[in-house]
Amino acid sequence: MDPNDAQAVAEFCAAAMWADDHASRTLGMTIDRIAPGTAELSMTVTPAMTNGHGTAHGGYIFALADSAFAFACNSRGPRAVAAQCQVAYLRPGRPGDRLVATAVEVVREGRSSIYDVHVRCEGAVVAEFRGHARQIGGSWLDGVPAPD
Amino acid sequence: MDPNDAQAVAEFCAAAMWADDHASRTLGMTIDRIAPGTAELSMTVTPAMTNGHGTAHGGYIFALADSAFAFACNSRGPRAVAAQCQVAYLRPGRPGDRLVATAVEVVREGRSSIYDVHVRCEGAVVAEFRGHARQIGGSWLDGVPAPD
Amino acid sequence: MDPNDAQAVAEFCAAAMWADDHASRTLGMTIDRIAPGTAELSMTVTPAMTNGHGTAHGGYIFALADSAFAFACNSRGPRAVAAQCQVAYLRPGRPGDRLVATAVEVVREGRSSIYDVHVRCEGAVVAEFRGHARQIGGSWLDGVPAPD
Amino acid sequence: MDPNDAQAVAEFCAAAMWADDHASRTLGMTIDRIAPGTAELSMTVTPAMTNGHGTAHGGYIFALADSAFAFACNSRGPRAVAAQCQVAYLRPGRPGDRLVATAVEVVREGRSSIYDVHVRCEGAVVAEFRGHARQIGGSWLDGVPAPD
Repeated sequence: MDPNDAQAVAEFCAAAMWADDHASRTLGMTIDRIAPGTAELSMTVTPAMTNGHGTAHGGYIFALADSAFAFACNSRGPRAVAAQCQVAYLRPGRPGDRLVATAVEVVREGRSSIYDVHVRCEGAVVAEFRGHARQIGGSWLDGVPAPD
Repeated sequence: MDPNDAQAVAEFCAAAMWADDHASRTLGMTIDRIAPGTAELSMTVTPAMTNGHGTAHGGYIFALADSAFAFACNSRGPRAVAAQCQVAYLRPGRPGDRLVATAVEVVREGRSSIYDVHVRCEGAVVAEFRGHARQIGGSWLDGVPAPD
Repeated sequence: MDPNDAQAVAEFCAAAMWADDHASRTLGMTIDRIAPGTAELSMTVTPAMTNGHGTAHGGYIFALADSAFAFACNSRGPRAVAAQCQVAYLRPGRPGDRLVATAVEVVREGRSSIYDVHVRCEGAVVAEFRGHARQIGGSWLDGVPAPD
Repeated sequence: MDPNDAQAVAEFCAAAMWADDHASRTLGMTIDRIAPGTAELSMTVTPAMTNGHGTAHGGYIFALADSAFAFACNSRGPRAVAAQCQVAYLRPGRPGDRLVATAVEVVREGRSSIYDVHVRCEGAVVAEFRGHARQIGGSWLDGVPAPD
C-alpha cells in the first residue's frame, strides 16, 4: 500500500476499521464507495428496526449516517472520532427500505473536521446529518511498512 | 385509565408505544422510569455494538437517548416524533457498560417541544443529547373509553 | 416582474426583505449575490463587534450567516423563518476582516428546508452554519400584479 | 480577590471580560447575575435589530444567548471559547421586548463543557440555545497576586 496514494490509503483505512466494526456489520450495512474524504454506505430497514410508530427508529437511521461519517473522516489515515452530531429527519423510513448514506467533507481545520451525510431512499431524502470529528492521535497506517 | 391523571396517562402511552417498539426491545433497553415529560431508559453495551475503535458505536448511544426522548415526548397523550436531534459525545462507552438515559422536558410551545437527555454510566456523563419533537396529530389515548 | 422567472423572483424577494431589514443594514452587510436557493452576503468586522477575547463576537458572525440563510430560504417567494440553527466556529474573526457568507440549499421537503452557510475570510473558513427554515404562510409576491 | 472563593472568581472573570466586550456593551446588554457556572444577561430589542419580517433578527437573540454562555463558561478562571452552538427559535422577539438569557452548566469534561441558555421575555420562552465551549489555555486570573 502506497501511503502517497490517497485512494489506496482510504481503502486501507476502511478495511482496517471494518474488520472490527461489529456494529455496522451486525446492522447489515455495506460500504458501497470509499474515497478520500467521502464514503457511501447502505442498509436495509428490517422489521426489528421499527419503533412504536411503525417506522424506522431514528437510532438506526442515525447509525447508518454515523458509520458513513466515520469511514469518511477516517479515510486519510489519522484516527478520528465523532465529537458531536446533528440529524434532521425529513421522511420516515419503512421496513424494506434500502437507505443510502453519502458522507462528504465540508471543512478540515487542524484536528477538527465537519462532514455532511445525506441519507436517501430511492433518491428521496430521509435524513440530513452533520458530524463534527476530532482526531485522537495515531493513524490507521501506524506500523504499515513503507513501500520499497 | 383516568385521562386526567397525568401519571396514568404517561404509563399508558409508554405501554402502548413499547408494545410495538421492536427497536428498543431488540437492543435490550428497559424503561426504568416514566412520568409526565420525562423518561429514563437503560441499556447494556454488548460486543456487537462496538465499532472500529473498539468502543460503543455512536449510533447505539444515540438510539438509547433517542428512545428516552421518544417516551418522554409522547408521555402526555399527543403523538409526537423527532424532527431534529443533536448529540455530543463526552466519554466512550465500553462493552459491559450499563448506560442510563434520562430525558427531561426543556420547553413546549404549540406543537413543538425540546427535550434534553443525559446519558450516563455509573454517574459519569457519556453523552448529552438534545431532541426537538413535533406533534403529528392523533393521541395515544384515541379510542380509550372515558372513565365512568 | 415575471413570477415564472426564478431569478427575477429571487431578486424581487431580496429587495422586498432588504427594504425592512434594519438589522442587516445596520451591521453594514451587503448582498453580493442572490439566486434561487442561494445568497451571498458580506460584512466587515468592526472594533465594536469584538468580545472580551479581542476577536469577533460569535453573535455577529452568526448574524451574517443567519442573514445569508434568510435571503436564500426566502428566494423562491414563500415567506420562511428560521426554526433552528447551528454554527461551528473554526477560526476567530478579527477587526477589519471582510467576512463572506455563502448560503446553499441542502434540501426542501414540504414546508421545511435546510441550508448550509459557509463563512469565509479571504478563502479560509471562519464558521460553518446550518439552518432549518419553516414556511409561515404568505409569499413575498402576494399582491404583485401578474405580468401581461 | 481570593482565588478559592468561587463567587469572587466568577465576578472577577466577568469584570475582566466585560471591560473589553465592546460587542455586548454596544448592544445594550447588562449582566444581571453571575455565579460559578452560570450567568444571566438581558437586552432590549430595538427597532434597529429588526429584520425583513419586522421581528428581532435571529442574530441578536443569538448574540444575547452567546454572551450569557460566554460569561458562564468563563466564570471559573480558565479562558474558554465557543466551539459550536445551536439555537431554536420558539417565539419572535419584538421591538421593546426585554430579553433575559439565563445560562446554566450542563456538563464539564476535561477541556470541554456544555451550557444551556434559556432566552425569555416576561417568562415566555423566546429561544433555547445550547453551546459547547473549549478551554484555550490561560486563565483570567493569570497575573493576579495571591492573597496574603
